[in-house]
Amino acid sequence: MTEPAAPAAVNRALPATGLASHLPILDWGRRYDRGTFTRDLMAALIVTIMLIPQSLAYASLAGLPPVVGLYASIAPLLLYAVFGTSRVLAVGPVAVVSLMTAAAIGNLAVPGTPEYWTVAITLAFLSGAMLLAMGLLRLGFLANFLSHPVISGFITASALLIAAGQLKPLLGVRVEGHNFVELASGLVRQLDQVHAVTAVMGGATVALLLWTRRALKPLLVRLGLPTGLADVVAKAGPVAAIALTAWVTWQFRLHEQGLKIVGTVPQGLPPLTLPSWDLGLWQQLAVPALLISVVGFVESVSVGQTLAAKRRQRIEPDRELVALGASNLGAAFSGGFPVTGGFSRSVVNYDAGAQTPAAGIFTAAGILLAALLLTPALYFVPQATLAATIVVAVLSLVDLGIFKRTWAYSKPDFAAVLATVLFTLGLGVEAGLIAGVLLSLALFLHRTSRPHIAEVGLVPGTESYRNVLRHEVQTSPQLLSLRVDESLYFANVRALEDRINEELARRPALKHVVLQCSAINDIDASALESLEAIDQRLQDAGVVLHFSEVKGPVMDRLKDTQLLRQLRGQVFLTHYQAQQQLAPAG
Amino acid sequence: MTEPAAPAAVNRALPATGLASHLPILDWGRRYDRGTFTRDLMAALIVTIMLIPQSLAYASLAGLPPVVGLYASIAPLLLYAVFGTSRVLAVGPVAVVSLMTAAAIGNLAVPGTPEYWTVAITLAFLSGAMLLAMGLLRLGFLANFLSHPVISGFITASALLIAAGQLKPLLGVRVEGHNFVELASGLVRQLDQVHAVTAVMGGATVALLLWTRRALKPLLVRLGLPTGLADVVAKAGPVAAIALTAWVTWQFRLHEQGLKIVGTVPQGLPPLTLPSWDLGLWQQLAVPALLISVVGFVESVSVGQTLAAKRRQRIEPDRELVALGASNLGAAFSGGFPVTGGFSRSVVNYDAGAQTPAAGIFTAAGILLAALLLTPALYFVPQATLAATIVVAVLSLVDLGIFKRTWAYSKPDFAAVLATVLFTLGLGVEAGLIAGVLLSLALFLHRTSRPHIAEVGLVPGTESYRNVLRHEVQTSPQLLSLRVDESLYFANVRALEDRINEELARRPALKHVVLQCSAINDIDASALESLEAIDQRLQDAGVVLHFSEVKGPVMDRLKDTQLLRQLRGQVFLTHYQAQQQLAPAG
Repeated sequence: MTEPAAPAAVNRALPATGLASHLPILDWGRRYDRGTFTRDLMAALIVTIMLIPQSLAYASLAGLPPVVGLYASIAPLLLYAVFGTSRVLAVGPVAVVSLMTAAAIGNLAVPGTPEYWTVAITLAFLSGAMLLAMGLLRLGFLANFLSHPVISGFITASALLIAAGQLKPLLGVRVEGHNFVELASGLVRQLDQVHAVTAVMGGATVALLLWTRRALKPLLVRLGLPTGLADVVAKAGPVAAIALTAWVTWQFRLHEQGLKIVGTVPQGLPPLTLPSWDLGLWQQLAVPALLISVVGFVESVSVGQTLAAKRRQRIEPDRELVALGASNLGAAFSGGFPVTGGFSRSVVNYDAGAQTPAAGIFTAAGILLAALLLTPALYFVPQATLAATIVVAVLSLVDLGIFKRTWAYSKPDFAAVLATVLFTLGLGVEAGLIAGVLLSLALFLHRTSRPHIAEVGLVPGTESYRNVLRHEVQTSPQLLSLRVDESLYFANVRALEDRINEELARRPALKHVVLQCSAINDIDASALESLEAIDQRLQDAGVVLHFSEVKGPVMDRLKDTQLLRQLRGQVFLTHYQAQQQLAPAG
Repeated sequence: MTEPAAPAAVNRALPATGLASHLPILDWGRRYDRGTFTRDLMAALIVTIMLIPQSLAYASLAGLPPVVGLYASIAPLLLYAVFGTSRVLAVGPVAVVSLMTAAAIGNLAVPGTPEYWTVAITLAFLSGAMLLAMGLLRLGFLANFLSHPVISGFITASALLIAAGQLKPLLGVRVEGHNFVELASGLVRQLDQVHAVTAVMGGATVALLLWTRRALKPLLVRLGLPTGLADVVAKAGPVAAIALTAWVTWQFRLHEQGLKIVGTVPQGLPPLTLPSWDLGLWQQLAVPALLISVVGFVESVSVGQTLAAKRRQRIEPDRELVALGASNLGAAFSGGFPVTGGFSRSVVNYDAGAQTPAAGIFTAAGILLAALLLTPALYFVPQATLAATIVVAVLSLVDLGIFKRTWAYSKPDFAAVLATVLFTLGLGVEAGLIAGVLLSLALFLHRTSRPHIAEVGLVPGTESYRNVLRHEVQTSPQLLSLRVDESLYFANVRALEDRINEELARRPALKHVVLQCSAINDIDASALESLEAIDQRLQDAGVVLHFSEVKGPVMDRLKDTQLLRQLRGQVFLTHYQAQQQLAPAG
């Protein structure tokens, strides 16, 4: 869908000042006009139609009554509209976070009980508080340590877990299990127990949804509908599936033949709820809440950044943390469960032309109306239909190509993906995520502790120096020239110590060591002490340490240190000068 | 002391092959000759004299019977001689590790009981197993993440804690406490309870030790003794203090006036002992054992590297882990407790002219003789004398200058020192070390997640590009030239995304972005995906992404990726070519 040109006054991100820089709504709200209103309202209508079935389905996925999904899509949308920096992000229940919610609460309460709901509310509260704290402390950078391969592997494995878990309502079998192996083997054992009516209903809905998703829009366009309208009709597929299957169930009284239906859904405003204040429960939920916060944040920020850049806008990660924190706190106090910015709904919102977060406010109003008025109509909706909605939604998240891509490009990244996927499928979402993060962090620390250190030599006929391993260069047995290609700090300076000790041990004629510092932007206190130790050891061995091409800011800080006071060697402006003076060629 | 020239055959580290590369003893042992033997034996004699009082004292510090200190100095020395890569490192009980041992066991058993000893043996076993595993898995780089400021702060705070804890045996007061505040306030309250005889004995011993340490050697030299002999006599100060105070105690029967003495010390070979196999205990000891392993390894490697470099030898950190692991396992099976390479004893060994690890074997034999023959002579040694030995030894570890130096040089490092010292003094050694490591790691991750990204412009009249903030350069509103001064990986690539999004939002005329990649040595899979996302977003915004000066190895890997397939822009050999083509000046 091509994007309509937007009114510049609203669309261009001007620098906001004062309070408006903290509350984006004051910025875009002041300049709100009628054209923007119309676009936002249209987008909200489409997103509402899409969100109703998704919200119901994701609440079931989290082990909660479907209506809780509606509650979780109202206050969070409103609060994000006030605090968020993305113009088009739509906040609410999403698949992976719902699965993580189910995994976190599964061992603490029985799904369907009031206790289970209270724990879900408490989880949203803790997650909101953590996001808010991370935002205020500007800890958004922590999300950087969730690498892309880990995220891809995690989402793929989670989607497979979700799909496997939905086979139970989809086929009417009783498959239980906490990991993929249990779910898959349970399914094989239960294949003869499949409930025919449920399986036909579920299968038909999956087929219908896949068809509307892939073939309906082109068909409608061929039939002469305008592209935009065809798109809206195709987007309504899940709503149509819900209406159609509910009607069929009611018409043929399929629920009397064992087809499970949603049943009575309470009608009315979201309830005012409070989290549990039981500190023991908080302790049990702390790690899951942190993981949910980080995963939710990363998903939300990636979507937000992608969409913002398309219109040359930008989002601010630390303020996104605050906005998502407020959204989750809102969910906790209005009967919801953990939420975040969703990929598909935000893309739909963007494609439908949403200009400002007001579209989110209108969407919230639409879902509120649904909670007030539409819930009786949900009575006959088969649970298999919700399961089908989930399966079709999550299968698009499966990306098995990540294995091939990382294997071809980078083995450490492949190892991180593999660990994440295997642990997630085998031991569950939390173990998988933790394994992936720890492995990629360990590989990262390992890599950063090995800086690239090259011995350099003079390129004949020039004044420049290159790696002796890659170029034909001149060196001298008395003089060792080393170039460190990274800033020196505690994690990598020991590698330099080791290298110099090694060279010292195998070069009996060595008299001078010159460190070419052209790539060193910073030397921390540990590295400074190590350089002092290196210099001391070289002095003890009768070798003089020198530096060349030290950058200005680094030199300024070194000036008053013990290192330069004890140094017997010199600091040369260029490496060529160093060599000319210490080991003149010829 | 000037170092005597050593026989070249033994002293020069020749490349070892086959099994000898794993067992250094096969390397130096083959070439062992009589001259080396004499030197090693002399060094061993001096180190033995020094080690006996130290071993007794550090065992008391760890809450164990003094004789355990002798046991812990025999098998570990032998095993290190077989596996170690340093020629002169002396392994045994050291102050900080003994304090950490006491802290680890304090809550699990009562000092002086057989259970306490068993826990100490188990701690040595676990620590040995961890060191061995880290060595075999080549995880020595993990020690790099203990930054120098954290180590200095930790050792200083530990030394203060140790000294405060020794006031009890030194003054005869009853001061109990797990942290510095408790110890110090306890002391003030108990000042009127000081046991006069004990305090006089303790004070006099401290004075005597300080005097032998500082004034005795110069005095002896002035009296005409050769420097070498004066040094040996001065080194014997602690032994003399032990003999003298024991004689005074026996002569004046001071133990009948309330002076606490060492009492009966069992005579004989170290016992053959086994660790506890109680997994619950292992779990409780896991974290302390890991911390003891890492601290011991770092202390040992720094000493080893410093001394090896003086003779142009080198040590291999991963094999040092194996050697220290074997030493601690040896300690566990011969009635000892956690050990590591000690600073002062290794320096003494080196100064005394030790040439090979055989000096360690001779030292072990000397201490074995002491355990067999000398222990009855220890009966009258006052506990205050051992306390005085400890206090004098650890006060030299206190380095309050670290605060001033880090404050002047680097505020993040200062914060890490301060946190380590305060947590160690206030909450104990484990909390202090963990706080220091986590804080410095967090500061490190924070720093690495913010790579240096400079907008560059053309220096007029040249073909070279410099940071626009520091130089007078030419730029163009259509073209943005960015130079990233680090390799791109998951931890820092989001900063590049943010920066490009920001520039995109504030430059309406932008048509081309060129990334100058001269400083990029590696691009991991996350960074690759981010670059694809950046390119996609720029394309959506009508801007073309280009690269310049991509290094050969990086280009080789990029060749078959989606990034280069989807890229609309070009990869230029030089940044100048890029600008000439995209935004020709004038």
